[in-house]
Amino acid sequence: MRQEPVVGVVREPILDIAHLGHVEMLTPKPEESLRFFVDVLGMTESGRQGQSVYLRGWDDYERYSLKLTASRSSGLGHAAFRARSPQALQRRVAALEGSGRGIGWHEGELGHGPAYQCRDPDGHVIEIYYETEWFEAPQALRPALKNQAQRFPARGVNVRRLDHFNGLAVDIRANRIFFEDYLGFRLTEQIVLDDGTEAGMWMTCTNKSYDFAYTHDHTDTPGRFHHVTYALDSREEILRAADIFLENGVFIETGPHKHAVQQTFFLYVYEPGGNRVEVANAGARLVLAPDWKPIVWTEAERRKGQAWGLKTIESFHTHGTPPVAEASGTDAAQAAPRR
Amino acid sequence: MRQEPVVGVVREPILDIAHLGHVEMLTPKPEESLRFFVDVLGMTESGRQGQSVYLRGWDDYERYSLKLTASRSSGLGHAAFRARSPQALQRRVAALEGSGRGIGWHEGELGHGPAYQCRDPDGHVIEIYYETEWFEAPQALRPALKNQAQRFPARGVNVRRLDHFNGLAVDIRANRIFFEDYLGFRLTEQIVLDDGTEAGMWMTCTNKSYDFAYTHDHTDTPGRFHHVTYALDSREEILRAADIFLENGVFIETGPHKHAVQQTFFLYVYEPGGNRVEVANAGARLVLAPDWKPIVWTEAERRKGQAWGLKTIESFHTHGTPPVAEASGTDAAQAAPRR
Amino acid sequence: MRQEPVVGVVREPILDIAHLGHVEMLTPKPEESLRFFVDVLGMTESGRQGQSVYLRGWDDYERYSLKLTASRSSGLGHAAFRARSPQALQRRVAALEGSGRGIGWHEGELGHGPAYQCRDPDGHVIEIYYETEWFEAPQALRPALKNQAQRFPARGVNVRRLDHFNGLAVDIRANRIFFEDYLGFRLTEQIVLDDGTEAGMWMTCTNKSYDFAYTHDHTDTPGRFHHVTYALDSREEILRAADIFLENGVFIETGPHKHAVQQTFFLYVYEPGGNRVEVANAGARLVLAPDWKPIVWTEAERRKGQAWGLKTIESFHTHGTPPVAEASGTDAAQAAPRR
Amino acid sequence: MRQEPVVGVVREPILDIAHLGHVEMLTPKPEESLRFFVDVLGMTESGRQGQSVYLRGWDDYERYSLKLTASRSSGLGHAAFRARSPQALQRRVAALEGSGRGIGWHEGELGHGPAYQCRDPDGHVIEIYYETEWFEAPQALRPALKNQAQRFPARGVNVRRLDHFNGLAVDIRANRIFFEDYLGFRLTEQIVLDDGTEAGMWMTCTNKSYDFAYTHDHTDTPGRFHHVTYALDSREEILRAADIFLENGVFIETGPHKHAVQQTFFLYVYEPGGNRVEVANAGARLVLAPDWKPIVWTEAERRKGQAWGLKTIESFHTHGTPPVAEASGTDAAQAAPRR
Repeated sequence: MRQEPVVGVVREPILDIAHLGHVEMLTPKPEESLRFFVDVLGMTESGRQGQSVYLRGWDDYERYSLKLTASRSSGLGHAAFRARSPQALQRRVAALEGSGRGIGWHEGELGHGPAYQCRDPDGHVIEIYYETEWFEAPQALRPALKNQAQRFPARGVNVRRLDHFNGLAVDIRANRIFFEDYLGFRLTEQIVLDDGTEAGMWMTCTNKSYDFAYTHDHTDTPGRFHHVTYALDSREEILRAADIFLENGVFIETGPHKHAVQQTFFLYVYEPGGNRVEVANAGARLVLAPDWKPIVWTEAERRKGQAWGLKTIESFHTHGTPPVAEASGTDAAQAAPRR
Repeated sequence: MRQEPVVGVVREPILDIAHLGHVEMLTPKPEESLRFFVDVLGMTESGRQGQSVYLRGWDDYERYSLKLTASRSSGLGHAAFRARSPQALQRRVAALEGSGRGIGWHEGELGHGPAYQCRDPDGHVIEIYYETEWFEAPQALRPALKNQAQRFPARGVNVRRLDHFNGLAVDIRANRIFFEDYLGFRLTEQIVLDDGTEAGMWMTCTNKSYDFAYTHDHTDTPGRFHHVTYALDSREEILRAADIFLENGVFIETGPHKHAVQQTFFLYVYEPGGNRVEVANAGARLVLAPDWKPIVWTEAERRKGQAWGLKTIESFHTHGTPPVAEASGTDAAQAAPRR
Repeated sequence: MRQEPVVGVVREPILDIAHLGHVEMLTPKPEESLRFFVDVLGMTESGRQGQSVYLRGWDDYERYSLKLTASRSSGLGHAAFRARSPQALQRRVAALEGSGRGIGWHEGELGHGPAYQCRDPDGHVIEIYYETEWFEAPQALRPALKNQAQRFPARGVNVRRLDHFNGLAVDIRANRIFFEDYLGFRLTEQIVLDDGTEAGMWMTCTNKSYDFAYTHDHTDTPGRFHHVTYALDSREEILRAADIFLENGVFIETGPHKHAVQQTFFLYVYEPGGNRVEVANAGARLVLAPDWKPIVWTEAERRKGQAWGLKTIESFHTHGTPPVAEASGTDAAQAAPRR
Repeated sequence: MRQEPVVGVVREPILDIAHLGHVEMLTPKPEESLRFFVDVLGMTESGRQGQSVYLRGWDDYERYSLKLTASRSSGLGHAAFRARSPQALQRRVAALEGSGRGIGWHEGELGHGPAYQCRDPDGHVIEIYYETEWFEAPQALRPALKNQAQRFPARGVNVRRLDHFNGLAVDIRANRIFFEDYLGFRLTEQIVLDDGTEAGMWMTCTNKSYDFAYTHDHTDTPGRFHHVTYALDSREEILRAADIFLENGVFIETGPHKHAVQQTFFLYVYEPGGNRVEVANAGARLVLAPDWKPIVWTEAERRKGQAWGLKTIESFHTHGTPPVAEASGTDAAQAAPRR
């Protein structure tokens, strides 16, 4: 049937965030973690500063997409989104300053300009910035085709680019509303329990069906990290990645298999620092509709397991970083008072 | 090196167009063309009206993405873009009305609301609309996963969704400026000859690296059509499509091979009506940078042929629809006076 | 290190069996089973006789590779191997007649000449034949390339050709020795429990790493069937098959995943009659060594699960056809006299 | 229709050759060639002796499959086939000694036992052996799965195993008869010109559709080499190989595309020494029929080009190694006496 004209009743979307820029991962085993990302995932080191090593996939256009920081425990340091324009950045900062969750401006980070940081309701540190440094490949890494950021490494898993990150949260609904209202993210899919509790959310600011996700932390520990995901071109490349993880003694938690939610073809492993890392197919699935209606998954539907019937393993709901015992006193935990 | 702050000097982008919605293809052999799209490409018929049959890929969220219209010749009837909001539609119409290229509002099309039509400088009919009818799969076509528009057909090539269209144009530069200024498209790649003449342009309004392209018509005939492209998930599926085209006696013009421009993995065939159709991998290549700097290809670079060395065949620059001899008097040609 | 010369001490291999020719599957739901094999797996009906329908994959060179027979229960009717020459057939028959397991000659089967039937130690009916009818594609099924048996159907899963079958057996060792001594099959991999009991065997008469396998029936019921496997070209095609099974409501038992044994990329489903059917990648793995040394898997190694860590599900050791309750006195249990 | 019984009239096949074991490639640029095979193709060095470096793909079960020998020109040193048994080796040697083409026994080669050498009618040196050294992976190259020869390298193109070689010959028919009569190879496909001249032959001793091929040398120079082929698992991997060759500045002669003959999905490049190297999908296409009837391709059929319409390039019929100017008196031309 035909929709009724809706001119005037539709609120225009906020389009100020362009994309996920990078994720800072904390690791208690910096050397082993670095070797994993460079030798096994096939990433390229593109900078060092203090306790951090900066890494990139061959198709990331910015200088880096992963900041690997030596720390006493594992987890998410922060996640950073690039604003669409200088004005868009100012608009979002103005909104966040009125949210009571702002932390303030952060200067002098390698590779990008002034960034404004805040904490989401669960305590994860989120930052937004506009100015950025485009990666300029040194001679040895120059690609054959000028429309590519860096030559294809042909080493290990050859991850292409950062795709999304997944955080754990105690209160999914509170976080969804925060990201919708203050940053303009759109919800594409979610899990809602029979009692109405929201248990998972997938949000986007691009045509990708999600740029980040939050799922419920069954341990009720705030500020934890579930995983970061790097994109590969095809499902076959994820299968090959599994072969390579096996050869390299990397722990495969689950997969390769296809999620019912978002239909992502996934493979989860643990990097040496204990953080979960996913490789997934960026695939052809895009959300082009500007008025996409969120897909709501029920408990009954989730009980069916993944798309092809694989049961979701228990650790998927409990393994987060940092480990619960080490969570208190972390950057994330310090958020508590603010919540 | 670090970029200088640019706050204030950057003009904010126009983000009013959401995506390419559908393409109307004219065919002098409606029955054969329909069989090609349904039996060989694996598309689904989702409507009929007058001389037109409406078709869709299994992942198109709107009712259709291809309007196949019986006509005395081949070519492009029109290309339609969906606006991001009712307000966005009004803004673009206001701009177009001041452009001298507006045609006016068009009502009563199957599957979408009021559309405003205009002609680009080369005479192609372009329309924009907002209200649309989401495809509701009948029982037999209902998918197993609720986040999918329609069940996977498992028939023929199984094209996923409309990806882009490519028009031929006499004056590329004039068209680029029109789409940038009045519709807010961004140029991602272009071909510029040694004398400064623009010979090809690839433009986007999404995170896809292009939603449409125009290349120079070596016959200098205005308003012609080069091809429409449907997306498949992987390069392997394009290879399988080639096997299927071969088995079905479909003429393969060139490919499968990889374009240097946009790195698209392509395969071009002619449908029975004479129009060129491409299947390509939607792939993982996205343009996420809001300030992407257009890639400029030179004559020397183009002479190298495609990415892996295949020479670009002559017909690629001359075969367009309608045939030159039939071009005069077509919808497209009627644009002439208006130009 | 260099091997010692072994001239004269090596017994020459028996090379009389060329390949697995076809499998007869019994089904209590002949119509539903037929629809599964034709519409979902993409096979082609190539004959009917009595209670049987004959089916083929597009790359099977003989008239058929699957004989689907209506029966009161499910299971394996018989498995047939083609001899390498008329003389080879005579030699094997002479050997079998001395084995005490011979049943006798069987004439008049559709598509092939005289076949000699016998029972393996577990009671499965095995037959060998030489004369065969090559498939001659009718006009509508004629391929574009003359070195292909039949055009690619582009329907459903598009299985390529019969790859192997897997039987359940109470005494694996006795069956291994029978197939080695009387038919000349070579063992490529096996599972041997800590107490020395053989629990699984994979045997070949070609360069494929196995043409059939037997695994231990945990219910200790003789003559049961585990699965038949059809080959696809790549792992990606098995993933697509999973999508198609999901869309068609076919029960997926386990997979897609990679076996440690033989490294087969597998996907198991149940056809409507209850028989397990596998689609797997024929892949590039070949056993070229004429003196291949069998790979022996221990209990500890099997406990690790499949290649990438997936646990082997319980039903894989217990679900066989016919169901245990229906096994006694089934066609499979003592078919020959009745046929 | 049903074939007539043929018992007694069929000559039993000779099954004494098990498979192609290795190829010796001559190169005037040994260091650059070695870097190509190790860094770009992803092969592993497994020995050195005199002017030769021995290389292997990760799935080759013998110590090596390529002997790369420094020489004043390029070309084929020799091709070696492994016999099926010691007795089979003796039978073939006895036959060759009666052929007038025998050279004699060759001892002391790295990795295998006594080999008997001969020249085919075109002058290529062919050797057969039985005793061989199985590759034993050092700790660093040990695979995770015990049924694999070596761990997957995850470097460059990752070629799996030697697949076949292709020689150029002046008189194809004479060579076909030689390989059929004295070594027992079976012809699976061939090209026969309108005047009856044989222009190409594809022969096998396994279930692969060919283990070597000879095509007519349009320069009428004897003993030249066309290419050696390494297998990859899927067509997608050949496409990725093309990306990697492009990044590494390797000259791509033609492909990726699909041959009509044998349906091989091919990609041809030149290694630094000038020899043509192919990577192709080992794929699922097997010749299982023991009485396969050779496919004969006519001039008219060949004029259609490759499977999907790509025209066969001229250099494919003329570029061989060594270059014609260097062919007379090369190692390849009269190697034996000197070795």
